[in-house]
Amino acid sequence: MDAERLREDFPIYSSQDRDIIYLDNACQTFRPRQVIEAMNSYYADFPACGGRSVHRLATLVSLKLDEAREKVAGFIGCSDPDRIVFTKNCTEALNLVAKGYPFKKGDAVLTTDMEHNSNHVPWLQMSERAELRHRYVATPSSGIFDVQAYRGALMPDVRMVSMVHTNNVTGTTIPEKEVIELAHERNIPVMLDGAQSVPHRKIDVEALDVDLLTFSVHKMLGPAGVGVLYAKEGMLERIEPLIGGGGGVGTTDYGSAEFLPPPEKFESGLQNYSGIIGSGAAVQYLESIGMDEVREHEARLNTLVTDGLKDIEQVSILKPLDPRLRSGVFSFNVRGMSSHDVAMIIDEMAKVQMRSGMHCVHPFFLSRNIDGCARASFYVYNTEAECKRFVEAVKEIVDTFSS
Amino acid sequence: MDAERLREDFPIYSSQDRDIIYLDNACQTFRPRQVIEAMNSYYADFPACGGRSVHRLATLVSLKLDEAREKVAGFIGCSDPDRIVFTKNCTEALNLVAKGYPFKKGDAVLTTDMEHNSNHVPWLQMSERAELRHRYVATPSSGIFDVQAYRGALMPDVRMVSMVHTNNVTGTTIPEKEVIELAHERNIPVMLDGAQSVPHRKIDVEALDVDLLTFSVHKMLGPAGVGVLYAKEGMLERIEPLIGGGGGVGTTDYGSAEFLPPPEKFESGLQNYSGIIGSGAAVQYLESIGMDEVREHEARLNTLVTDGLKDIEQVSILKPLDPRLRSGVFSFNVRGMSSHDVAMIIDEMAKVQMRSGMHCVHPFFLSRNIDGCARASFYVYNTEAECKRFVEAVKEIVDTFSS
Repeated sequence: MDAERLREDFPIYSSQDRDIIYLDNACQTFRPRQVIEAMNSYYADFPACGGRSVHRLATLVSLKLDEAREKVAGFIGCSDPDRIVFTKNCTEALNLVAKGYPFKKGDAVLTTDMEHNSNHVPWLQMSERAELRHRYVATPSSGIFDVQAYRGALMPDVRMVSMVHTNNVTGTTIPEKEVIELAHERNIPVMLDGAQSVPHRKIDVEALDVDLLTFSVHKMLGPAGVGVLYAKEGMLERIEPLIGGGGGVGTTDYGSAEFLPPPEKFESGLQNYSGIIGSGAAVQYLESIGMDEVREHEARLNTLVTDGLKDIEQVSILKPLDPRLRSGVFSFNVRGMSSHDVAMIIDEMAKVQMRSGMHCVHPFFLSRNIDGCARASFYVYNTEAECKRFVEAVKEIVDTFSS
Repeated sequence: MDAERLREDFPIYSSQDRDIIYLDNACQTFRPRQVIEAMNSYYADFPACGGRSVHRLATLVSLKLDEAREKVAGFIGCSDPDRIVFTKNCTEALNLVAKGYPFKKGDAVLTTDMEHNSNHVPWLQMSERAELRHRYVATPSSGIFDVQAYRGALMPDVRMVSMVHTNNVTGTTIPEKEVIELAHERNIPVMLDGAQSVPHRKIDVEALDVDLLTFSVHKMLGPAGVGVLYAKEGMLERIEPLIGGGGGVGTTDYGSAEFLPPPEKFESGLQNYSGIIGSGAAVQYLESIGMDEVREHEARLNTLVTDGLKDIEQVSILKPLDPRLRSGVFSFNVRGMSSHDVAMIIDEMAKVQMRSGMHCVHPFFLSRNIDGCARASFYVYNTEAECKRFVEAVKEIVDTFSS
């Protein structure tokens, strides 16, 4: 793939800020004009609501929403678009499951010990509210998922495995096939938080046989404020909607409401129609590049950066060291400096945008006595030239500020 | 106000569909270019996340979000922007309160008998889940709120009054001041579903002393997928977040999470940043017109339509008959025809877009043995000429199809 050519599609690279080096992609990516145009066509040509009224504009919205749902389903290898629920972000999707699945008091959920708060706080809330147990599979210092520990943790009270697929701090990916197979042997469903996996490589939900998958389209060239929940047949039927209201129910009376079949039952109220339509354009754009290409491109950039910085004594890279195991994520610290200082100085000095701090994975950092880290994360429009400038900028910071 | 001039701001009126007569505004309104441009500036100039990273783009997003929150707060007379929570729609805002407020088993909530499903289904869910009681104030056949019945229903177990401020089917408005004062005399907080009131006239939450107010910006020229919850000081602190995750909490550890102060505690995960920024532009646009002007304009159009159709024997208008009591809503039936047929034929025949059916207020219709209605709803860009054409089209339908 040709990142330089792709950049022509992203308005910011034609603006006065064209020389910025945006490496905060694990938080949110830029959007190509194809996605922006899809959103604008909604506002210009059929700015109405979907799935409700019977007039010409509303019908057009409903058709465009169906198309977008089909595209997103196809992107993750799902043959039935009705298994795709649109939410406002990955966080809502995870909450929807945690709070709507028919857990009973004393049931346990199993996560890793390095979940994003989005797959941690909902379970804490459920522990308090419904006496759900929450157990963690410990990650060894290598950063690599411990299958033996996982196997041991699959105790009889476990009703769901809910794990981060690719970690947003280390970039490591759990062995999803093995995780799913071992859980299924015990009839335990598996939810994967795919916020950092779906944007970065080909995921086939049916080949994986995963029960639930969540992700955010704003991390994959899509509009702000759109997340997705995929669920295998039979799962959505068991989940009570987090948000009830118009559009999610059939006829209601004073004493009862009958929820519609999925996905409608989870999409009450008017939705982010422009965002959903833009999501279809986003996955179409990614498919035109090819997800294997995306993955290889990120690995190439991550290797370049890792090779450039791994021998600098004052730079410590969050393990594992092998960039091929870290997707598009490069997390590091500079000795004697806070990660926030590193992020602010590198933006000032070299126009590099990075994330810093604990990246919403506080327990991981606190339990390891690490005070956060800086994170560079790559995407399709980042170039080797940018990564070389990033490496030089880190070296300059080390030379100037590090103790 | 000059509707013809305003229309120049709305792209659809310069398109090939410029001759449509859009009267489905109670569902969703069009957006002026000022709102579309505000959204596009986000995607072109600072397409990053807010409230998280410390780099230049993220800082700009955070500033723009603060500005938007201030504008929305000001629009409803709220002096503290931190009392404004952005949600994905009004439905989420209502669910957030219903499911997060510290109700106890046996507590009762009091609504009208003509709530939208968004203020009905969440309470049904809570009745089942938490044994909350749900009682209804009956609306007499006049369509006018019955204060005596309300007074009698304020029994000691009532912990919240949650009522539709302006009804989406009849267009009637409850006497909000009296409703709030009577509840406050008994220390009961009041939530108003303002989806159909905030877009149509000046609301001053502090003058009203309302405890909670919800609305949707896509019903008031704003982007798709943005709702708002306003809460009086002290209320948000008592509500547990519906959605927990990153951005909504301070430091977390394995056993606990401390939620941030509002509004952050309710805005976990990446948000609809373009939508929130566009919401600021939407309220600014409405303020430039003036909400009293908006109200008068709608009343004028509603009067024109009512006068044009009230004497047609085959047309029955949903009570009350006085258009001044029905905001921008004109709901009606044509004898011998289903409302869906009326809506489809009038779109085909005269390019009028209307809503039909039960408008997510099923219990109201079922209990009155009415099989839905057609609804025309007006907004700032509708003209008297359009309304005259609408009246003529209804008459033509009556002449051609009515029994």
